[in-house]
Amino acid sequence: MNAPTNFDNLEVGFDVPALPGMDEADIQTPCLILDLDALERNIKKMGDYAKAHGMRHRSHGKMHKSVDVQKLQESLGGAVGVCCQKVSEAEVFARGGIKDVLVTNEVRDAAKIDRLARLPKFGSTVTVCVDDVANIADLSAAAQKHGTELGIFVEIDCGAGRCGVKTTPEVVEIAKAAAAAPNLTFRGIQAYQGAMQHMDSYDDRKAKLDAAIAQVQDAVDALKAEGLEPEFVSGGGTGSYYFESNSGVYNELQCGSYAFMDADYGRIHDQDGQRIDQGEWENALFILTSVMSHAKPNLAVVDAGLKAQSVDSGLPFVYGRDDVKYIKCSDEHGVVDDPNGVLQVNEKLRLVPGHCDPTCNVHDWYVGVRGGKVETLWPVSARGKAY
Amino acid sequence: MNAPTNFDNLEVGFDVPALPGMDEADIQTPCLILDLDALERNIKKMGDYAKAHGMRHRSHGKMHKSVDVQKLQESLGGAVGVCCQKVSEAEVFARGGIKDVLVTNEVRDAAKIDRLARLPKFGSTVTVCVDDVANIADLSAAAQKHGTELGIFVEIDCGAGRCGVKTTPEVVEIAKAAAAAPNLTFRGIQAYQGAMQHMDSYDDRKAKLDAAIAQVQDAVDALKAEGLEPEFVSGGGTGSYYFESNSGVYNELQCGSYAFMDADYGRIHDQDGQRIDQGEWENALFILTSVMSHAKPNLAVVDAGLKAQSVDSGLPFVYGRDDVKYIKCSDEHGVVDDPNGVLQVNEKLRLVPGHCDPTCNVHDWYVGVRGGKVETLWPVSARGKAY
Repeated sequence: MNAPTNFDNLEVGFDVPALPGMDEADIQTPCLILDLDALERNIKKMGDYAKAHGMRHRSHGKMHKSVDVQKLQESLGGAVGVCCQKVSEAEVFARGGIKDVLVTNEVRDAAKIDRLARLPKFGSTVTVCVDDVANIADLSAAAQKHGTELGIFVEIDCGAGRCGVKTTPEVVEIAKAAAAAPNLTFRGIQAYQGAMQHMDSYDDRKAKLDAAIAQVQDAVDALKAEGLEPEFVSGGGTGSYYFESNSGVYNELQCGSYAFMDADYGRIHDQDGQRIDQGEWENALFILTSVMSHAKPNLAVVDAGLKAQSVDSGLPFVYGRDDVKYIKCSDEHGVVDDPNGVLQVNEKLRLVPGHCDPTCNVHDWYVGVRGGKVETLWPVSARGKAY
Repeated sequence: MNAPTNFDNLEVGFDVPALPGMDEADIQTPCLILDLDALERNIKKMGDYAKAHGMRHRSHGKMHKSVDVQKLQESLGGAVGVCCQKVSEAEVFARGGIKDVLVTNEVRDAAKIDRLARLPKFGSTVTVCVDDVANIADLSAAAQKHGTELGIFVEIDCGAGRCGVKTTPEVVEIAKAAAAAPNLTFRGIQAYQGAMQHMDSYDDRKAKLDAAIAQVQDAVDALKAEGLEPEFVSGGGTGSYYFESNSGVYNELQCGSYAFMDADYGRIHDQDGQRIDQGEWENALFILTSVMSHAKPNLAVVDAGLKAQSVDSGLPFVYGRDDVKYIKCSDEHGVVDDPNGVLQVNEKLRLVPGHCDPTCNVHDWYVGVRGGKVETLWPVSARGKAY
């Protein structure tokens, strides 16, 4: 998992969409490409922002699922470790050499708890979220069995409506139990407001985050009063990180999508009313697709459909083109409106996917391009690691 | 690809969601499970139907992407070969030992045409669709280069609005060119009406198929008049196969979803107004998921979100349960409405996915279950093979 990819026995087409050194024009489609210049600029920018604001940035690996991208976020963007959502993802990152791994999620199944508790043996600090005091004894028993230590974040539901506890007394109860349990360390608070990240208006997002900050502040004050000051207060995404950074209560960010961008995030507006993909962040991730039928003069069919992307957050847009529009998606086809019949069979288009996370999860490879050439291929190391 | 899976070095959790012999209760979630009894009944039923109606059934492998499922469709259901949509899928099936492979799609890229033309060397008959006479010379040149033969189906757009030609003169022009080209054989017509398959009403579907049949009949008559009678007239899906079977013009079916079923297909009605998943076909495919948080009394959070399924055709439903409902899907979570708080943490649920094809494409394994035990694991052999 950690070893550099050996391309010697890989066949273009059957195994991989491209090989390093190839011209961009020869890439087999559909596949994911990364504009390495744009990616590096995004990663550097977020790293600089976090540093300037005294925040740790623990980049979210659930988005890219790639050990290689994570390592770039650490080396170039100063990220302090990785967030992930599943034990199987944590295994990939820990075995891949990432030294600080936070599972931003609850782990309840006995076999998964066992796998998690074994993970520090790979040399990583491992932290997990808890929203039920009953979980503490199981985590502690597994860590004792393996002779390891697990860090504990208490998860607060600060508006996302999924996991996490809603009240300060529950936070304190779980933190106390974690602090008292053998082989567990209470380390902090997980408070990610996932439901507001994609709201278009900056002011709407700010209102939701103001409420979250007040809720988290209340819990932190109560913990301090109990002598349980959290070392880390962690949260923040691409649509909110400036709120957490200026909150005075959070000290750790968990941004993911900023690195790649997608159509749904791109549509939200910054404080000046500008789309965030037109200044704040660059599109670095594209689905490269080819026209494979143009039997009707005003409709082109491209080779990227539902098996090359997720459309849960809307259809992709065609990057850099106002004259054609991706209007329909079926399993293996995209229909592109081409009113003036300008597209040619085999012409390649760059699509910006609606939602990067589940789109990355259907591909096995990132093809890194720079200056018209394929510079690198990175495996989507934790692809399909949902369990 | 064709070799039986060696489970000796596979670790449950990290590599696979389960191992043969395990109790169903110990499967790591989320993952895909197949009810092998239901699957076998579906496959047998479609095979019997095709046989009774004098139809060939070329089962569609784009749905399952599995050499093992395809082999079961051939051995138990009498399927004559596989349909697929991509050259990379055709490579998996041909290398996996499937002897008759039809790419129900156009192939235009030079490198892909070269890969396709090489494929008969693996011992399979290979056929591809064409909707542009300009494609014929490229296919012929590649087949000559490799010393192989490619079969040609002319694709008619009979209502789906994607690939395919609309008029009979275009069909005849392409068929003539194929018949005249070295190393190509004109073999038939591809006429799949994809746009009507999911219409709820039987009568609405019939009206669409009646129009398609008339269009195809016209093309077949014209071809016969030119001495180019097609050997195969191929099409038909799970929402239409009875229309094609009784058309007098089609002689080959291409059904896929019938074998697994999904929520979107399940909702359509048969001639008697009954949902087709309540009599015609059984749900054989499920996403097995576990409750992993229940911090709010009336909402359970399960571990199957967008990275365990595609929601393009709607959310999954919880199989066999009227008391709880899957109401929201995010990347790694599903929110389940549990008004009476009956669900327990770690309780497992079977979800019927909205759309089987792109859901299967995010998983690496099918876990085959029978009688509460894991009987087999099949790789999703062509997963991610989109290019």
